Amino acid sequence: MHINSNYQNISETYLFSEIAARVKRYQEENPDAKIIKMGIGDVTRPLCSAAVEALKKAADEMGTKEGFKGYGPEQGYDFLKSALASYYQKTSAVELQLDEIFVSDGAKSDIGNILDIFSNDNVIAVTDPVYPVYVDTNVMAGRKITYIPANKDNGFLPMPTEGFEADIIYLCSPNNPTGAAYTKDQLKVWVDYANSHDAVILFDSAYEAFVTDPKVPRSIYAVEGARTCAIEFCSFSKTAGFTGTRCGYTIVPNDLIREGVKLQKMWLRRQTTKFNGVSYPVQCAAAACLSKEGLEQIRANLEYYKYNADVMTSTFNELGWPYYGGTNSPYIWVKCPDNMSSWEFFDALLGKANVVGTPGEGFGKSGEGYLRLTSFNTHGNTMEAMRRIKEVFK
Amino acid sequence: MHINSNYQNISETYLFSEIAARVKRYQEENPDAKIIKMGIGDVTRPLCSAAVEALKKAADEMGTKEGFKGYGPEQGYDFLKSALASYYQKTSAVELQLDEIFVSDGAKSDIGNILDIFSNDNVIAVTDPVYPVYVDTNVMAGRKITYIPANKDNGFLPMPTEGFEADIIYLCSPNNPTGAAYTKDQLKVWVDYANSHDAVILFDSAYEAFVTDPKVPRSIYAVEGARTCAIEFCSFSKTAGFTGTRCGYTIVPNDLIREGVKLQKMWLRRQTTKFNGVSYPVQCAAAACLSKEGLEQIRANLEYYKYNADVMTSTFNELGWPYYGGTNSPYIWVKCPDNMSSWEFFDALLGKANVVGTPGEGFGKSGEGYLRLTSFNTHGNTMEAMRRIKEVFK
Repeated sequence: MHINSNYQNISETYLFSEIAARVKRYQEENPDAKIIKMGIGDVTRPLCSAAVEALKKAADEMGTKEGFKGYGPEQGYDFLKSALASYYQKTSAVELQLDEIFVSDGAKSDIGNILDIFSNDNVIAVTDPVYPVYVDTNVMAGRKITYIPANKDNGFLPMPTEGFEADIIYLCSPNNPTGAAYTKDQLKVWVDYANSHDAVILFDSAYEAFVTDPKVPRSIYAVEGARTCAIEFCSFSKTAGFTGTRCGYTIVPNDLIREGVKLQKMWLRRQTTKFNGVSYPVQCAAAACLSKEGLEQIRANLEYYKYNADVMTSTFNELGWPYYGGTNSPYIWVKCPDNMSSWEFFDALLGKANVVGTPGEGFGKSGEGYLRLTSFNTHGNTMEAMRRIKEVFK
Repeated sequence: MHINSNYQNISETYLFSEIAARVKRYQEENPDAKIIKMGIGDVTRPLCSAAVEALKKAADEMGTKEGFKGYGPEQGYDFLKSALASYYQKTSAVELQLDEIFVSDGAKSDIGNILDIFSNDNVIAVTDPVYPVYVDTNVMAGRKITYIPANKDNGFLPMPTEGFEADIIYLCSPNNPTGAAYTKDQLKVWVDYANSHDAVILFDSAYEAFVTDPKVPRSIYAVEGARTCAIEFCSFSKTAGFTGTRCGYTIVPNDLIREGVKLQKMWLRRQTTKFNGVSYPVQCAAAACLSKEGLEQIRANLEYYKYNADVMTSTFNELGWPYYGGTNSPYIWVKCPDNMSSWEFFDALLGKANVVGTPGEGFGKSGEGYLRLTSFNTHGNTMEAMRRIKEVFK
């Protein structure tokens, strides 16, 4: 019996454990320090009441003979797929067929599992810095990865360069970790590349709900030609605070064909074989978030985070610190002042302002010299953190 | 770009669509016929009230700032893992460490996904007849499959024969579709085989809650030596009616080492990379089913199905029809009378008694000549179906 030896090649991520260790040490040495964590990648606002009520109503249904639901369709109930189709129509003027929408327990699962339908000999392209899941899931399968540097020169929005070759291209916009977001014109270049090179774009739109700039598409299908080259992953995690409730969705257009095979059909086969659908009460809660009332309620939570982002970007503007994101994104990717390295700035911020960020270098070597901050803390903590930063670094 | 060409080798399953088509045609031709479906593989009893209340309580928590839960541990909350450890202790006298327990959205997901940690060059052994997921998930990865015939001669409980060679062995006991269940002594032979051949047993115990015979283990870890060779998959689907609520669990013992690597560590890496944990309210509901009150309530539902199984087996005893299962299992694997083929008996049962079963041949060629019936219908329908069968076939 042989194990999958590719697992030996996955690099251990020490980023978050190293952060935790440094914070712990600092707190022990400075027991009175009120540390504010501005590196958190998780939402903090409670579920909206429409979602809570839908969960409870579905729970009651499940407790009755008439309302009980057993196995549902692996790809999700039509009521939720219809609600998602309307959402796409409303937010992006994108028309989707219901069989192109696959409901899942989260974008991370689908982003990993989608690789099942692709051969292991494809060349994978990811940006650097990068959300580590794109890399690790491919290393596990032994695929070759090529890195596209994102940096100051391309505004952390790299484009295909002369001689660029890849079969599968990961794009995340608005981006984690940099907060940078592609315009429609920029995405069109990637779509044209993919269509002319027979490549497939895996488009992660997890942060689409934070987009405010009309030039920035919330779905790649707002870009002409994307239906023949792109798979889109999204979720209720950031849109509706579902990080602990778990519901995502993946779009595989019927027009996406490679080697004569509809990828929609392959993904359907993958999901019906290795997945049994999302919890019925959770699907009800997700659909409730897309109702008129639900959309208003989740909008209020998004505004809460956006207010934090505004407080942060105003601070950095005042200090003259270059940054990316903050608009169209809950992430702010700030240049470390005084040419500090990511970890030097991390230590300075922790030691002088008692504020914790995430060193950009942890997301890839092009992230060196940057720090990721997020807008997911409370108003109070965010304002206090910015006050301290101004005081220390002014 | 290349697709995974192994997908072309997955056989299309026409079993359930063919059944549906024949039933539809019969109903159209006989609009007054009251057809009773005894082939259903899904539970029908509502969620127990302990689960419903826990779901609602968790939903309320999620709607408050203090009670809100974001990302949880990918492998499940400790409160549920502790409840599962107690359940194993109580039902099987098996001691598990919490880090050996992985909570998931269902056994089907884990049974498919576990293959990520194994090399594609392993030889896979499955029984024939077989739950099709074991086959399809391996065909998708291009693995070689060897079939172990289960039949009348071995009581549908095949054992390793002279010269048998496999790296990964799927065992499902109590079995789907045959209802047959291995004794501890029989499983010990498989465990010894796996340990001496460096193989791994993937043990599907989805129907463990139906076991009543003390000689039949509910967990493979009740068998000495299993901790060094077996991974166990189970779920709340059949135990607590969670087919639509979605919660399963997989046990990877810390003692299971292959090629010098702990498989527990590999699975943890797989799950943290490609999975984000089960919905918090669902984990609360699952834990509630394992409380004293919850265990009593789910026991009542299991008794309901067992009563149906008793009605069915009494009928077949009366008719002198050989069968497997019915005890220790919700499935009854009945020999087709008069040497009919599976589909001939299916048609006869539908046409003469208006009862629908599942042709055994659909689960593999050794299933020819058998039909699978289940105990998941109502008392009323089950009794009426048996009355008709006795009338027609006596």
